[in-house]
Amino acid sequence: MAGHYYTPEVWIPIFINVSLSLVFYIITSRLIPKLAGMFINARICGIDLNKHQSVQVPEAFGVVAGCMYLIVMFLFIPVPFGSAVLQNSAFPYHELAKLVTALLSICCMILLGFADDVLNLKWRHKLLLPTVATLPLLMVYYVISNSTIIIVPKPLRYLFGFSVDLGVLYYVYMSLLAVFCTNAINILAGVNGLEAGQSLVIAASIVLFNFCELSSDLWRTHQFSIFFLAPFIAVTLALLKHNWYPAKIFVGDTYCYFAGMTFAVVGILGIFSKTVLLFFIPQVINFLYSVPQLFHIIPCPRHRMPRLNRDSGMLEASEFKCDESSLSPLGKLCLNVVEKLNLARVTRKDGTIVGNNLTIINFVLVKVGPLHEAHLSAVLMTIQILCSGMAFLIRYPLASIFYDVPR
Amino acid sequence: MAGHYYTPEVWIPIFINVSLSLVFYIITSRLIPKLAGMFINARICGIDLNKHQSVQVPEAFGVVAGCMYLIVMFLFIPVPFGSAVLQNSAFPYHELAKLVTALLSICCMILLGFADDVLNLKWRHKLLLPTVATLPLLMVYYVISNSTIIIVPKPLRYLFGFSVDLGVLYYVYMSLLAVFCTNAINILAGVNGLEAGQSLVIAASIVLFNFCELSSDLWRTHQFSIFFLAPFIAVTLALLKHNWYPAKIFVGDTYCYFAGMTFAVVGILGIFSKTVLLFFIPQVINFLYSVPQLFHIIPCPRHRMPRLNRDSGMLEASEFKCDESSLSPLGKLCLNVVEKLNLARVTRKDGTIVGNNLTIINFVLVKVGPLHEAHLSAVLMTIQILCSGMAFLIRYPLASIFYDVPR
Repeated sequence: MAGHYYTPEVWIPIFINVSLSLVFYIITSRLIPKLAGMFINARICGIDLNKHQSVQVPEAFGVVAGCMYLIVMFLFIPVPFGSAVLQNSAFPYHELAKLVTALLSICCMILLGFADDVLNLKWRHKLLLPTVATLPLLMVYYVISNSTIIIVPKPLRYLFGFSVDLGVLYYVYMSLLAVFCTNAINILAGVNGLEAGQSLVIAASIVLFNFCELSSDLWRTHQFSIFFLAPFIAVTLALLKHNWYPAKIFVGDTYCYFAGMTFAVVGILGIFSKTVLLFFIPQVINFLYSVPQLFHIIPCPRHRMPRLNRDSGMLEASEFKCDESSLSPLGKLCLNVVEKLNLARVTRKDGTIVGNNLTIINFVLVKVGPLHEAHLSAVLMTIQILCSGMAFLIRYPLASIFYDVPR
Repeated sequence: MAGHYYTPEVWIPIFINVSLSLVFYIITSRLIPKLAGMFINARICGIDLNKHQSVQVPEAFGVVAGCMYLIVMFLFIPVPFGSAVLQNSAFPYHELAKLVTALLSICCMILLGFADDVLNLKWRHKLLLPTVATLPLLMVYYVISNSTIIIVPKPLRYLFGFSVDLGVLYYVYMSLLAVFCTNAINILAGVNGLEAGQSLVIAASIVLFNFCELSSDLWRTHQFSIFFLAPFIAVTLALLKHNWYPAKIFVGDTYCYFAGMTFAVVGILGIFSKTVLLFFIPQVINFLYSVPQLFHIIPCPRHRMPRLNRDSGMLEASEFKCDESSLSPLGKLCLNVVEKLNLARVTRKDGTIVGNNLTIINFVLVKVGPLHEAHLSAVLMTIQILCSGMAFLIRYPLASIFYDVPR
């Protein structure tokens, strides 16, 4: 343990942050049911397709969670700088600038996400919005450090040398990271509690990683990440309480954007974006699995979420249907590969192809069989947790193969 | 002129800022009509009560202006720090922190304003939202300077001395300033083009004041204000183009909050909040005049905007009506004072009182007679401009009575 580990400078701000988060967990979880009527009146609601009765469920509650999150963070702003003010030492203005910029990106993402939920923006906007919201982060990164040098993994050093200056590509990488994090959560959705649940597991995993790293020399950046994630976990738990099966509210795109941007921000400013991506394994797999449908190589219906079997009350994999002749050669190839690898249930009859929609949600249903919605959520959460465990295995014992780990 | 006045450090960032603003004026004014259908589909629209036909007009377009404003400002972030980066001089992190915090407050206000427009929040929320959005500003002010000392005006110095430390009251003052600026614009509304028009005049007046002060020692803070207001003027002009009579879009509460917060931010961070308030003379008068109705001392109908005389096509003052017996003693007193000072048209008949609603819009209509909506807007703009002229008279020749002006 380094000398700083047991000092109040490390633990008191974390203690205050966690306490504030607890208070706001209680406030938020009480506030949500009170606001439901207001959302219904404003017609920000949708029908839960996987229920027997078709009831209007208020949507876009991510905006409530996001606003409560911002209030916690606003109140928390002075805390990390308390010791600098008290000790009259040089004030860490760059730390303050980083903190506020991160909040600006998150706030902007909540605003754009809510606008998306309300206005139903088009797909191309969904890619543009996170890029806009990352702008302040990139700009401040540019003026503060503009360090675009990365350490090359050991096996590749004979090609590129010890380090490479990525230059402008580094900024492209950072903004793509934000686009990926926000949309990856958005496309692994459609079952009660899934968006908030997966984000909760990812956030908890990053916080665990941060706590492991608090003893290292880079403790400040990990403390910074905890400051952002503890309140995030609090408002997510409050959402999850009302969004878990049977959902009384939906979290909306607002929440997916908000969550993804929070992860991107802590990854970028904490300079552990590769580790953050490790906790996105199910999302990465889901994205790759979805690619043929997302890029319309294989037909993609408007909704890919599982559908309710009204007789059994169980969820079954939803399907796409098309004429074999209408498929492009690339589409046929994709379908063959997926079929050969046993990654989808495809049936052909009279020139018509029927296959399950390519999401890991449907994949689970194909492999395990029809499941009750609450059980499906629980299974997907378990997968997310197992993948986080795997991520820790990769990050700790295996990282030394690729990098010189100083421990 | 001080030595800095003709240096590129003063003018190049302003030039870039104004150029960006021009580009975004064009983009925004082209974007607005394209988005109108999207707002109508999302049912974010209202009927213009002062037109012959009842047409659905898309509302809350302040959110479009606000988002475009944020994009300009995000792109602009590195510019003021170019010279510091190039000259390798000490990086002004506190300036960066100020800039980003101001943007955070404005972004948060746009988010909350849009939520208000969409969800139709209650009156008490309208007072709470600007307070929340000012939080980051106050927190950063607290950690950066925490200077709460004010210079006492000369005539009061025999009472308080040269300066007074307001302590926590200073923070209360700053947050009330934000609440006032946002709501003052919000209650002087209801005629096509009025919200954007008055904000335009106020912004232009502050920018003029800033240009006058660019030669002073405090030039940096005035340059900072110009950075914020030039893009604001650009997006406001774009809005006004479509919001002027006959309005094809409404700006919504979002815009009023956005405008008010921008003024509050430049006033607070530029430490010329008293001067900013000087440009709010019509709003202050309108607020004081409205007080009896706002606090329900005199009955207040839901809409106080002027109403259309469908025969003449002219706008006339809208009125409130009540039984004389239902008025409280305080209500009677208020009504008598207003009547005695000839500030309202009140008629009494068979115990029923009818009077014009207490806004300066109705006051103008009572004094000048019915006006066409476009003329009424123009008259109110003229009043705003004349008041700005008066503000300059007060600020420059008269300020020396109250303070030691160093020029």
